[in-house]
Amino acid sequence: MRLFNKVAVIGTGLIGGSMALAIRKKGLAGEVVGVSRHKETLALAKKIGAIDKGSRELSIIRGADLVIFAAPVKTILSLADKARGFIPKEAIVTDVGSTKKQIAAKLEKIFPNYAGGHPLAGSEKRSIANINAEMFKDSLCILTPREKTSPGALRKIKRLWNALGAKVYMMSPGRHDEILSFVSHLPHAVAFSLAGSVPRKYMKFSASGLKDTTRVALSDPRLWTDIFLSNKRNMLKSIKAFEDNLSKIRSAIEKNDEGGLLEILLKEKKKRETLK
Amino acid sequence: MRLFNKVAVIGTGLIGGSMALAIRKKGLAGEVVGVSRHKETLALAKKIGAIDKGSRELSIIRGADLVIFAAPVKTILSLADKARGFIPKEAIVTDVGSTKKQIAAKLEKIFPNYAGGHPLAGSEKRSIANINAEMFKDSLCILTPREKTSPGALRKIKRLWNALGAKVYMMSPGRHDEILSFVSHLPHAVAFSLAGSVPRKYMKFSASGLKDTTRVALSDPRLWTDIFLSNKRNMLKSIKAFEDNLSKIRSAIEKNDEGGLLEILLKEKKKRETLK
Repeated sequence: MRLFNKVAVIGTGLIGGSMALAIRKKGLAGEVVGVSRHKETLALAKKIGAIDKGSRELSIIRGADLVIFAAPVKTILSLADKARGFIPKEAIVTDVGSTKKQIAAKLEKIFPNYAGGHPLAGSEKRSIANINAEMFKDSLCILTPREKTSPGALRKIKRLWNALGAKVYMMSPGRHDEILSFVSHLPHAVAFSLAGSVPRKYMKFSASGLKDTTRVALSDPRLWTDIFLSNKRNMLKSIKAFEDNLSKIRSAIEKNDEGGLLEILLKEKKKRETLK
Repeated sequence: MRLFNKVAVIGTGLIGGSMALAIRKKGLAGEVVGVSRHKETLALAKKIGAIDKGSRELSIIRGADLVIFAAPVKTILSLADKARGFIPKEAIVTDVGSTKKQIAAKLEKIFPNYAGGHPLAGSEKRSIANINAEMFKDSLCILTPREKTSPGALRKIKRLWNALGAKVYMMSPGRHDEILSFVSHLPHAVAFSLAGSVPRKYMKFSASGLKDTTRVALSDPRLWTDIFLSNKRNMLKSIKAFEDNLSKIRSAIEKNDEGGLLEILLKEKKKRETLK
């Protein structure tokens, strides 16, 4: 089922590369082109079959009827300006940035047919070498239209995500950023802090608990600096909520309050059980 | 290679049950008996082949030349008094409690041939139904002798753990409790707090990051209340170290300090990379 003639993926990393590969495998576009800063990435993307053509120059996106910005938030913000000259106003434009408010505010001004998105998929391994055409199967994708978003563009982007196997939710960019600050950004801040707290000489005594709890601290610090700062207000709120919870545990330990501590942990375990 | 004539496992849960099963499978004892509060647990332990005989009465341990206490810390402390009448002073006694200082202080007074241990293995799934004779293969086990610990008892307990496949480290109970507060107890406190911080209605938008980071919050709250309180001083220290680290991230976000934040995350990621 062809949805687009020419799809341009700007940023052929884990998410962009996986989208490109899935779009080609499913025949959703006549042609898929990719842009990356790195020649090696483009060569590998082509070899894997994720793109038909690749270039380090943005001019390759000319003529695309769908443009996907798949880069860190700050990079998307700066690429939007550089890419605008190659994108006609009828082209549909989307992105997969991890926070949506800043990106939406900027891209909707530049591109009349823009609607942002965020697939809740991926991993701490970001490179093209880890791409996977099935990455979005049975995943969630949040689209973040605003009042003035073109319904036609939104419909088309939704069809794309459905074709990639994702269930689509719609919400405002602000709502997205609030939710993600709790379910994704806070866990990363916590995991980084936890990894940083363990004295190096104790590391060899760690079992699976510490490993799982800090796995996402293997994520790219540049990407996460960008995410934390572009979602500042929500991050401060979610960190505060977490600090309050941890200080309840600390204070129960301080007071040897067995009943109180048990009650806290029972409640938190019950909350965790709602995670499928 | 038979090391003992009769082994008594007091508490046939995940760790005790797996030890019993491995001891029988490897022929390390002439006989293995188990004690549990639950008839069903004993029936299942016998059916799986973890024990030769089981009872809810401690008297079944009579005649054992190795007694293993495999229960939560507080339970071990109270069982030691109840079991002493059935344990002759020449019997070797050990335990697998998660914190060691309180247990060592008490058990070494009662049993002349006591040396504590803590296998760094297990999972949040605690019941006999999840036992596994290979649980300790390639794992670490910490033994916590003190100056007055009988060298003969210690040697025998070390041989047992080596036979179960574990690499053995020796350190004082106090040192053990400090290390574990960082590599195990703190991650649990953090995971419980994190699970408690996410608004319930946002849970459905979580991806693998939140799941991994909070997996250990599925652990038994009773067991962990017990661990946190029996390791109070170290817990307060490790929580403080973590809070200081998180507040560095928070403060860099507050100040929009991109360079500072990146530096923190890079350092923490590097630390995480030392975890095999």
